[in-house]
Amino acid sequence: MDNIRLSLDEVRKISLDAFIANGFSDRQAHATADVVTRAEADACRSHGLYRVPGYIAAVRAGRANARAEPSVQQSAASVLQVNGDGGFAPLAADVGRPELIELARRQGIAAMAIGNTHHFSALWADLEPIIDAGLVAWCFVVGQCAVAPYGGSSRLMGTNPIGFGWPRPAGGAFIFDFATSAAARGEVELKRLAGDHLPEGWAIDAGGRPTTNPSEALAGALLPFGGYKGSALSMMVELIAGPLIREKTSREVTRIGITDGGPPPGGELYVVIDPAAFGTDAGIAGETFFKEATSQAGVRLPSARRHAARAQSHRAGVEVPMSLLRQIEALCGTSPDAL
Amino acid sequence: MDNIRLSLDEVRKISLDAFIANGFSDRQAHATADVVTRAEADACRSHGLYRVPGYIAAVRAGRANARAEPSVQQSAASVLQVNGDGGFAPLAADVGRPELIELARRQGIAAMAIGNTHHFSALWADLEPIIDAGLVAWCFVVGQCAVAPYGGSSRLMGTNPIGFGWPRPAGGAFIFDFATSAAARGEVELKRLAGDHLPEGWAIDAGGRPTTNPSEALAGALLPFGGYKGSALSMMVELIAGPLIREKTSREVTRIGITDGGPPPGGELYVVIDPAAFGTDAGIAGETFFKEATSQAGVRLPSARRHAARAQSHRAGVEVPMSLLRQIEALCGTSPDAL
Repeated sequence: MDNIRLSLDEVRKISLDAFIANGFSDRQAHATADVVTRAEADACRSHGLYRVPGYIAAVRAGRANARAEPSVQQSAASVLQVNGDGGFAPLAADVGRPELIELARRQGIAAMAIGNTHHFSALWADLEPIIDAGLVAWCFVVGQCAVAPYGGSSRLMGTNPIGFGWPRPAGGAFIFDFATSAAARGEVELKRLAGDHLPEGWAIDAGGRPTTNPSEALAGALLPFGGYKGSALSMMVELIAGPLIREKTSREVTRIGITDGGPPPGGELYVVIDPAAFGTDAGIAGETFFKEATSQAGVRLPSARRHAARAQSHRAGVEVPMSLLRQIEALCGTSPDAL
Repeated sequence: MDNIRLSLDEVRKISLDAFIANGFSDRQAHATADVVTRAEADACRSHGLYRVPGYIAAVRAGRANARAEPSVQQSAASVLQVNGDGGFAPLAADVGRPELIELARRQGIAAMAIGNTHHFSALWADLEPIIDAGLVAWCFVVGQCAVAPYGGSSRLMGTNPIGFGWPRPAGGAFIFDFATSAAARGEVELKRLAGDHLPEGWAIDAGGRPTTNPSEALAGALLPFGGYKGSALSMMVELIAGPLIREKTSREVTRIGITDGGPPPGGELYVVIDPAAFGTDAGIAGETFFKEATSQAGVRLPSARRHAARAQSHRAGVEVPMSLLRQIEALCGTSPDAL
């Protein structure tokens, strides 16, 4: 049997045990296990248990601080800065988020930069508690350098995801979260393993020429989604989640030469608007639009698949590869050789 | 001779004279002529003199208030709302912008909603004075309903442009500004007139089927750029520049049934960050990235073409079709028949 069915409580416990066994503080372990569990619940496997070995690798490599104590500082009337103390982003976000929500409500709009962290989680998970508080929000993260600009010939930018959310009355927040590259490196790797060609427009080779060969693409660069428009958006993320908040660009991260498979160091920018500042209850005001959208057969709102998966996972648990489970259990030993 | 060469001063005077002759107040006329002139200077013809008849048509139709006096109200500590008094967006933006810049500097981040206006100008023109003040900013406008959501079969969203800017030391601000549709309706119309087919992925017909026939596309709907990602961004713009700021969605605009070719009513949302709130001078902090980007042959930064055109236009003026000039001159008569 290749897969095993686990309840979400079991997913959480497996993550927690692995983190605690590897010297994570209770706070770092709980915050990180929480995003792992939520990703599994939403069938967002690439951010679920699959990431546990990477988190641990970053600690064993001495890059990430498993006992980090993030702190929040207000650097302007409507701006917060969270110093993640070299730990993982989930706890830094948990520490800053209540103050961010409070500040956005008081000021109408607020921004928060998280820095000195290692980010490995999905942006929808970062946004959801803010959106469920009735606010409208964005967040941005610089990914590892893998993407050539439109018209270019080599890597300049990260996969640089953008997240945005809008509240809905039933709690099923409208949130999207996507890389500004045409595809993720993981998708290219899967095509390579399957012996498939890539769709045109995904990648260029090391010489800057368009390629549909996965191996050539991995040696070259991914392309932005949507041509020059996606390229411009990727540049925007590089600027606002890098130099704006005095955090690393994707090229700076690459120069570090991380080989442990763990999360890269970097920052995250949040922008949060309180609709009440415009006299609006967003949870009501957007519903006409959503109703019109979903009245068209074939239209699926962003998040809809995650919400359906979540309902299913809470009832019936999730399927996890046995091989992954064994890998994580092995990491509960304290020997670095278990990696 | 089909074209005539005009200095930028002449472009401004032609626009001004036409607006004043049609009952525009001095303030509405100057603000609107300014964005027309700047668009011509940057070879952004579709937002230049070409739009003058539309502005006038909206006034003659009784839809737009040519003598509107916009007012600014602070609705939260970091939020401004401009009531455009039924006039055109350029004056409303001019009235709100100094307060917006001041508020962003004081608070670190600020938002401004412009409402009760008619918007017909390019977003880069709206952003540039803010970026040149050393700030980082976005703006968003809902366009007329023309775009089907990804997977859908009929029009739901506007062409919904996104503008973003980042300051540069030489003043040549990095600003991009693009529709979230795969193409503008005007581009489809040009393909129809030329007898060309559309690229795949631009449009669907009235039955919701993919089409490369321009006439079928015009009867159907445009598609978002970049598949589901561009579709999500278009939805975002529809929400934040519509219901969030209590302004019209693209479908609400369409229900008005505007046939005069003038600008539609609607709003605009600005979000402005002062990099100093993060301890950053953006005009310096971004330069390493821009240098790395432009070191790749084939990479052109957003705005580069406009900046080159601007330098040329200030030296040598611009070429304008004689037919357009005659049309505008005819509008200087006060008879509605001149339209």
